[in-house]
Amino acid sequence: MRSLDELRALADEFLASLPLAAELGRLEEALRYSLLGGGKRVRPVLCLATGEALGRTPDELLPAACSLELVHTFSLVHDDLPALDDDDLRRGQPSAHVRFGEDVAILAGDALLAEAFRLALRYSSPEVGRVLAEATLGMIGGQYVDVRTDGELDGDGLAALHRLKTGRLLGACVESALVVADVPTGDREPWRAFGRDVGLLFQIVDDILDATGTAEELGKTPGKDEAAGKVTYVSLYGLERARDLADAARARVTAELEALPADTGALEALVAAIRERRA
Amino acid sequence: MRSLDELRALADEFLASLPLAAELGRLEEALRYSLLGGGKRVRPVLCLATGEALGRTPDELLPAACSLELVHTFSLVHDDLPALDDDDLRRGQPSAHVRFGEDVAILAGDALLAEAFRLALRYSSPEVGRVLAEATLGMIGGQYVDVRTDGELDGDGLAALHRLKTGRLLGACVESALVVADVPTGDREPWRAFGRDVGLLFQIVDDILDATGTAEELGKTPGKDEAAGKVTYVSLYGLERARDLADAARARVTAELEALPADTGALEALVAAIRERRA
Repeated sequence: MRSLDELRALADEFLASLPLAAELGRLEEALRYSLLGGGKRVRPVLCLATGEALGRTPDELLPAACSLELVHTFSLVHDDLPALDDDDLRRGQPSAHVRFGEDVAILAGDALLAEAFRLALRYSSPEVGRVLAEATLGMIGGQYVDVRTDGELDGDGLAALHRLKTGRLLGACVESALVVADVPTGDREPWRAFGRDVGLLFQIVDDILDATGTAEELGKTPGKDEAAGKVTYVSLYGLERARDLADAARARVTAELEALPADTGALEALVAAIRERRA
Repeated sequence: MRSLDELRALADEFLASLPLAAELGRLEEALRYSLLGGGKRVRPVLCLATGEALGRTPDELLPAACSLELVHTFSLVHDDLPALDDDDLRRGQPSAHVRFGEDVAILAGDALLAEAFRLALRYSSPEVGRVLAEATLGMIGGQYVDVRTDGELDGDGLAALHRLKTGRLLGACVESALVVADVPTGDREPWRAFGRDVGLLFQIVDDILDATGTAEELGKTPGKDEAAGKVTYVSLYGLERARDLADAARARVTAELEALPADTGALEALVAAIRERRA
């Protein structure tokens, strides 16, 4: 059983040596800037750790795992644009549009999305690509809700937003591992429930950190959500109650992992890291 | 053998009834606005007409054909953004960002690209999706050259730019028909040569029209390329010589079609329409 650090190192190596389309020319620099800018790699590690639990090697999972990181990176590049979240800081560095200009950032995001599909389509079956497409569309649907409903969400609306914006991609990390490992459809639901709840845990912790972290800790501008009038778990429930919700989500996720018929050590370590925010 | 008009009507019907991801919510309106805004459907018709020549039915080709139109539409929505070509008029209507705002236009373009892959991955093989990913990356590489090298291109540079920006997607219309029709790899080159040259013809005619057409005829702002200091076939060679080049390209494409071992009537009609700009 590989450790979280080993899985993260494998994802980092794979991404660092990923060949990008030659036709991108010097646009490649902008893609690599955003892709290799020190992300936590939660998504590929979640996919790889699910693969570990299913007895599959990282080699089998890495294209699927890293295609999800490419989609995540594309979404950050576009989200940071002035017309959307207008954030100048990402992963502790100037955002792509600050570094390269808005035109290049838009094209780089587009190219990251297309590269994600190119990578997911290395498999002989289109199924990983289908999972990626569905999750990407769900995520974009969540981004749309996010930009168009400032301050109008109740608890159910917030949960629905996050199920799309963050949850669909995290769920796809688990789902694509199930696909690659060829887990029978009838056996997938307990894994999917875990994938849904780990997404909820991730989001609550993210909201707490946005309210309490420093720019240095976060690598992005803190307090942005509150300043933008966005509803978060903290704005809706207060900090103490949000922490209780995070602990409850973590307990549920842990129970789900324990019930799975697999050695879920790497996944348990990932869940702990998410809650304690070292992931 | 179906006529061009029949093939275009089939593409229009397919696009009009295409189910989009439910999670997009009200963002769907922006996708449909751009997708159903009266395009000429050159790309899907080129794919369908190639399929006709290969003895395949439109039903087999329509997902591939329309996935290419979705990528084309995504590229228009993003190209029109203020940070890129900054064009307020598209297909005779306000551009997506004028109608819905920049934030929604960025997200709608992203969603159109993801929907394109979802559609291309309806096939049991990932090959159509792979063709789409490669072509999309080539097109984006061309867009990057276009935004970053104003007024610095010679004839070879201009040809290289268009091979990427317009040519790769038009080539993919032919290539994906070859994939769906299961044409052996060794037999594909004459078709690919046709695909490359029809792209060149299309671009020369487009440059001529940009210099001579009215907004009403074009459905977009005319003279934009010249005003932006962009190199075109007209700016580089003059109008008369550009027309000669278009006629030469058309003669070459026609000869290539005549040499193909197939009934290429629909393709010949499409080439005539491109040259005479009724497509």
